[in-house]
Amino acid sequence: MAGPLVGPLVGIVMGSDSDWPVMRLAAEAVTEFGVPFEADVVSAHRMPQEMIAYGERAAGRGLRVIIAGAGGAAHLPGMLASVTPLPVIGVPVPLKYLDGMDSLMSIVQMPAGVPVATVSIGGARNAGLLAVRVLAASDEALRARVEAFQADLRDQAHAKGERLRAEAAQMRETGPA
Amino acid sequence: MAGPLVGPLVGIVMGSDSDWPVMRLAAEAVTEFGVPFEADVVSAHRMPQEMIAYGERAAGRGLRVIIAGAGGAAHLPGMLASVTPLPVIGVPVPLKYLDGMDSLMSIVQMPAGVPVATVSIGGARNAGLLAVRVLAASDEALRARVEAFQADLRDQAHAKGERLRAEAAQMRETGPA
Amino acid sequence: MAGPLVGPLVGIVMGSDSDWPVMRLAAEAVTEFGVPFEADVVSAHRMPQEMIAYGERAAGRGLRVIIAGAGGAAHLPGMLASVTPLPVIGVPVPLKYLDGMDSLMSIVQMPAGVPVATVSIGGARNAGLLAVRVLAASDEALRARVEAFQADLRDQAHAKGERLRAEAAQMRETGPA
Amino acid sequence: MAGPLVGPLVGIVMGSDSDWPVMRLAAEAVTEFGVPFEADVVSAHRMPQEMIAYGERAAGRGLRVIIAGAGGAAHLPGMLASVTPLPVIGVPVPLKYLDGMDSLMSIVQMPAGVPVATVSIGGARNAGLLAVRVLAASDEALRARVEAFQADLRDQAHAKGERLRAEAAQMRETGPA
Amino acid sequence: MAGPLVGPLVGIVMGSDSDWPVMRLAAEAVTEFGVPFEADVVSAHRMPQEMIAYGERAAGRGLRVIIAGAGGAAHLPGMLASVTPLPVIGVPVPLKYLDGMDSLMSIVQMPAGVPVATVSIGGARNAGLLAVRVLAASDEALRARVEAFQADLRDQAHAKGERLRAEAAQMRETGPA
Amino acid sequence: MAGPLVGPLVGIVMGSDSDWPVMRLAAEAVTEFGVPFEADVVSAHRMPQEMIAYGERAAGRGLRVIIAGAGGAAHLPGMLASVTPLPVIGVPVPLKYLDGMDSLMSIVQMPAGVPVATVSIGGARNAGLLAVRVLAASDEALRARVEAFQADLRDQAHAKGERLRAEAAQMRETGPA
Amino acid sequence: MAGPLVGPLVGIVMGSDSDWPVMRLAAEAVTEFGVPFEADVVSAHRMPQEMIAYGERAAGRGLRVIIAGAGGAAHLPGMLASVTPLPVIGVPVPLKYLDGMDSLMSIVQMPAGVPVATVSIGGARNAGLLAVRVLAASDEALRARVEAFQADLRDQAHAKGERLRAEAAQMRETGPA
Amino acid sequence: MAGPLVGPLVGIVMGSDSDWPVMRLAAEAVTEFGVPFEADVVSAHRMPQEMIAYGERAAGRGLRVIIAGAGGAAHLPGMLASVTPLPVIGVPVPLKYLDGMDSLMSIVQMPAGVPVATVSIGGARNAGLLAVRVLAASDEALRARVEAFQADLRDQAHAKGERLRAEAAQMRETGPA
Repeated sequence: MAGPLVGPLVGIVMGSDSDWPVMRLAAEAVTEFGVPFEADVVSAHRMPQEMIAYGERAAGRGLRVIIAGAGGAAHLPGMLASVTPLPVIGVPVPLKYLDGMDSLMSIVQMPAGVPVATVSIGGARNAGLLAVRVLAASDEALRARVEAFQADLRDQAHAKGERLRAEAAQMRETGPA
Repeated sequence: MAGPLVGPLVGIVMGSDSDWPVMRLAAEAVTEFGVPFEADVVSAHRMPQEMIAYGERAAGRGLRVIIAGAGGAAHLPGMLASVTPLPVIGVPVPLKYLDGMDSLMSIVQMPAGVPVATVSIGGARNAGLLAVRVLAASDEALRARVEAFQADLRDQAHAKGERLRAEAAQMRETGPA
Repeated sequence: MAGPLVGPLVGIVMGSDSDWPVMRLAAEAVTEFGVPFEADVVSAHRMPQEMIAYGERAAGRGLRVIIAGAGGAAHLPGMLASVTPLPVIGVPVPLKYLDGMDSLMSIVQMPAGVPVATVSIGGARNAGLLAVRVLAASDEALRARVEAFQADLRDQAHAKGERLRAEAAQMRETGPA
Repeated sequence: MAGPLVGPLVGIVMGSDSDWPVMRLAAEAVTEFGVPFEADVVSAHRMPQEMIAYGERAAGRGLRVIIAGAGGAAHLPGMLASVTPLPVIGVPVPLKYLDGMDSLMSIVQMPAGVPVATVSIGGARNAGLLAVRVLAASDEALRARVEAFQADLRDQAHAKGERLRAEAAQMRETGPA
Repeated sequence: MAGPLVGPLVGIVMGSDSDWPVMRLAAEAVTEFGVPFEADVVSAHRMPQEMIAYGERAAGRGLRVIIAGAGGAAHLPGMLASVTPLPVIGVPVPLKYLDGMDSLMSIVQMPAGVPVATVSIGGARNAGLLAVRVLAASDEALRARVEAFQADLRDQAHAKGERLRAEAAQMRETGPA
Repeated sequence: MAGPLVGPLVGIVMGSDSDWPVMRLAAEAVTEFGVPFEADVVSAHRMPQEMIAYGERAAGRGLRVIIAGAGGAAHLPGMLASVTPLPVIGVPVPLKYLDGMDSLMSIVQMPAGVPVATVSIGGARNAGLLAVRVLAASDEALRARVEAFQADLRDQAHAKGERLRAEAAQMRETGPA
Repeated sequence: MAGPLVGPLVGIVMGSDSDWPVMRLAAEAVTEFGVPFEADVVSAHRMPQEMIAYGERAAGRGLRVIIAGAGGAAHLPGMLASVTPLPVIGVPVPLKYLDGMDSLMSIVQMPAGVPVATVSIGGARNAGLLAVRVLAASDEALRARVEAFQADLRDQAHAKGERLRAEAAQMRETGPA
Repeated sequence: MAGPLVGPLVGIVMGSDSDWPVMRLAAEAVTEFGVPFEADVVSAHRMPQEMIAYGERAAGRGLRVIIAGAGGAAHLPGMLASVTPLPVIGVPVPLKYLDGMDSLMSIVQMPAGVPVATVSIGGARNAGLLAVRVLAASDEALRARVEAFQADLRDQAHAKGERLRAEAAQMRETGPA
């Protein structure tokens, strides 16, 4: 997928550039799969009209998935979902207090009719991977890459297991610290 | 205040008419003080453009305070606050699960720059009373009515105390049940 | 979409048929959009091997999205996500205690690498609508139906607003109850 | 508004000067709008009589809004609201444990009859901005300044978006880190 | 203790007579020990001056312990503790939502300097028993009654155990239901 | 296992017989596996000395596992674990408020050195099944019965799946309700 | 109070000396009032028999109040309360995780019959002050010292207010930072 | 127990080697009792088939107890419990946010039929000690070691008490800091 002339398929937006250190993990994830993205500051509270416009135009501009990160009273993912027919993935960004529970509640508890696909607190990397899976639902080549990625996760876990077994073996020989 | 020809000063809005049984307590409270209100369904998620328009026009139409009730991922109060310069009072409406904690988090945890005056879970009556206080901040006659209301609360508490002292006296005579 | 000969595109699974009263809302939602589905009991804890097999074969059988509902220590959505490249939508089913917070935590807090698209507690209808949006991401006709659905939500909200404005007008005339 | 001879319109009070690093953000916010304020230590638990007196005299001294910050079993905002007809804005100050959830519960869950306008945990800046909106409800010039402030927030968000788009463009060229 | 002419030693107060069904358990508990009490409605929010006065005069009137019940933003126990040198026992009364967690937070999280002896949510009976223990700390005869009460609790538990052992024995004979 | 002359291997205890409707599920579970049990009221708070004695004598009397249910400030499982070398399984019994979260915290958060094997809120059946697994760890015949039980769970799930597939098929034919 | 020959009136106990940095604040508080205390490690889980013995003998040895600090599954305060007729004050000590919520739940949620006077999370100083109030309930001289202490708190708050007013005045002159 | 030729009796597994710093405390605990263990990375989400295989083969390979640590949506303990008849001990590993509450919920709230013996958040040492108790349930010699261990805990607590009494005595002489 994602030939040289294709515009962005995934829009990664957030209320402030202070969320970028979290949200760039989503950008990195889609990039690993060759999926073109765009990133932007789209604030539900500071530029509501532009936020609405972003959502309304997203499908027409060729986007296929929107990833929106927000913290606290996190309204961006849900508001975008209300003005676009595209699937919207919400990333609860943790703020200074409450460990992101407020962000999670504000994103996941959407009313019937307007779904947001919510990932874990701070889970921007999984948001990117979920966007890839959404695209892969209609793209067999990309789905094969997801499967290869899953195989790679398994291999990494095996390697970690090998090292841990070695460490445990040594511990058994030398006794507890 | 509130002469016969005055239009509504308080807008009471909610995402669905299913919130009206809770939110009508706000309407009753402002009515007790002779403050004219309007009530409407303004859904952040089901009619976002109209919601934005409602907020943008509110001050120009003569409204002075907006009361917004919402449940779950409750975005209405915060979104209205982002498009109006008026004070917005948010009422966390409890849904079937979580006792309104999700509604509270989604309303009160607004980012710096866009305040929402949040009241208690299901606290629509207090939202109405807070709207009255906001109006009374620049209206001495209305402020006097708030003080009279407070004196009335005190008198009611006194009367309750009298009855309870009598009941307790009887209990002391007859011993524990 | 969804011609007469098409097999199911959405698999709706749950750990027990006691979850069906919640999960059938997902089935109804996809059916409203003409999207064929299948429903099954696939228990992570009572039939783990079959659960793994279900996930591994899902894409090959033509499914494009999996919706999994589970309660308490809700492992089904995450386990399926680990064995399929398809997008998995998780529905936290509330049990007798804790209002579904345990279900939500167990579904949404997936580790990096294995995303689950989580919807609200008991939000099976939104899970169905999210599945439709995922399919619509690569299906313009279906996307148009999503947009029509959104317009319908707006119209319903308008109608509710009209009724509420009438009720409020009457209340203003008659004064507080 | 706020001519040279006007006394303070907003009273900013807190239980201890240890809350000042949080609460001074409220003072800075009202000052940005030219609204004169006063700040004081008014402890509900350590000087209850003076606290009551402060509340009772506030309106008579010309204050129009009270902002009260408190942490833990945070009784100051609610107690002031019980002795003044003015709108009281409560700021939940987070203490060493619980991330301010105790402060929030103690402030927002007021009984019917005595409202407190609660802002986010640590949200003193928003408390100041809310005080400005309350004053602006009856002051068109001040309301115009609120609108200008909102336009400024939007412009700042635009600028942040521009920088982020540039950074994302560079990231797309160089690939994932 | 508590000869025929002694005035009340324990003051049981609450913000509203709606709390009496919970708080009367405290009255019953002290009465079981022959400790004279008084009960009254003393609302921190509806009659703050009288509440202060109640606390200030309590010790002088002969009270030795105050039991205060309150729900939601429960300020009564802490405010009384700030104006009396007597020990104040706080009972978190559960309201319609949140299962009394807000009440508990508002009562137990008092700042250093002003302690409240908090009992369990809805634990008015224990509040009464705690008041008895406080009085018994300087009254050997009353302390002996507390010890007799504890022995009685033990005997009741023994009797329950006997019945349960019998029931379990029968269950073992007949097999599982 | 569990020949005709064997005394109880599992002790099922609780603070009050009011917990028996929950705890009897543990008794039923062990009985399904032919494991002899005893049940008793052993209250940490109402008969502490006897509780200590119960724990100290348990192993000597032939018990191999203790199951202890308790609610609220649930001290029984942890206290028993401190006076017996046997594995103690704790069942958090939900009380009227807090949905058993207090019970769970009081049981599971034991300090290093004194473990309690905690099961889910109200999970007495699982406590019984866990006791069986503990005994089966050194009893191959019993372990085979656990495996047969697991196979039976799987078969039941299969049967449920069959019924659900039929119901879903019918729903697809008739369309949404 | 507390002549030269008086033994300790307050016993301050904790499960481990690692709690001493928190609990010594209780010792300091009673010492400020001239109340003699003793401090000891009394672990409910590591020395249960001795813990029981400590509680049983406390009143006979002349103690009048017990202060018990504990963290996590905090059983010490409640267990002591079950074996002594003295008032027991519980201090929830926060551990590495959960900010002391587990400690609080385990201490405050005691069953009817066995009260524990719970103070705030980490609130050992207030535990000491509460012990003083308990003793002062039957000791007029000590009660006078509590009142003097309260007056001192008020004076300190006044002084803090003076400094804050000065700082705020300066801020008003120089404008926002 | 545990002669020189015995294979591992306890399997200690975790989803990633990043959990090893927590989980090695379990290994150290069993080693103190001479119980042979193995440690491995077995990820429910990254190598689900191998995870299933690990559980299915565990009993046949001679393991008697499995200890599984996991964080977030922690599915490993429950999934293993579904494929082995052995007792499975779950350790909730705290992640960056939520203090391990998500891990605890995901592990302890297992459905009826599939028990997991859950220990405290981060409580790997207790998991090891619980495994020892499980083995000791059928091994008198090992049970004697558990009792010796408990006696040692008591002696350590005594020693800590001695030091604390000395420190408190010094504090009483020198007065408060």
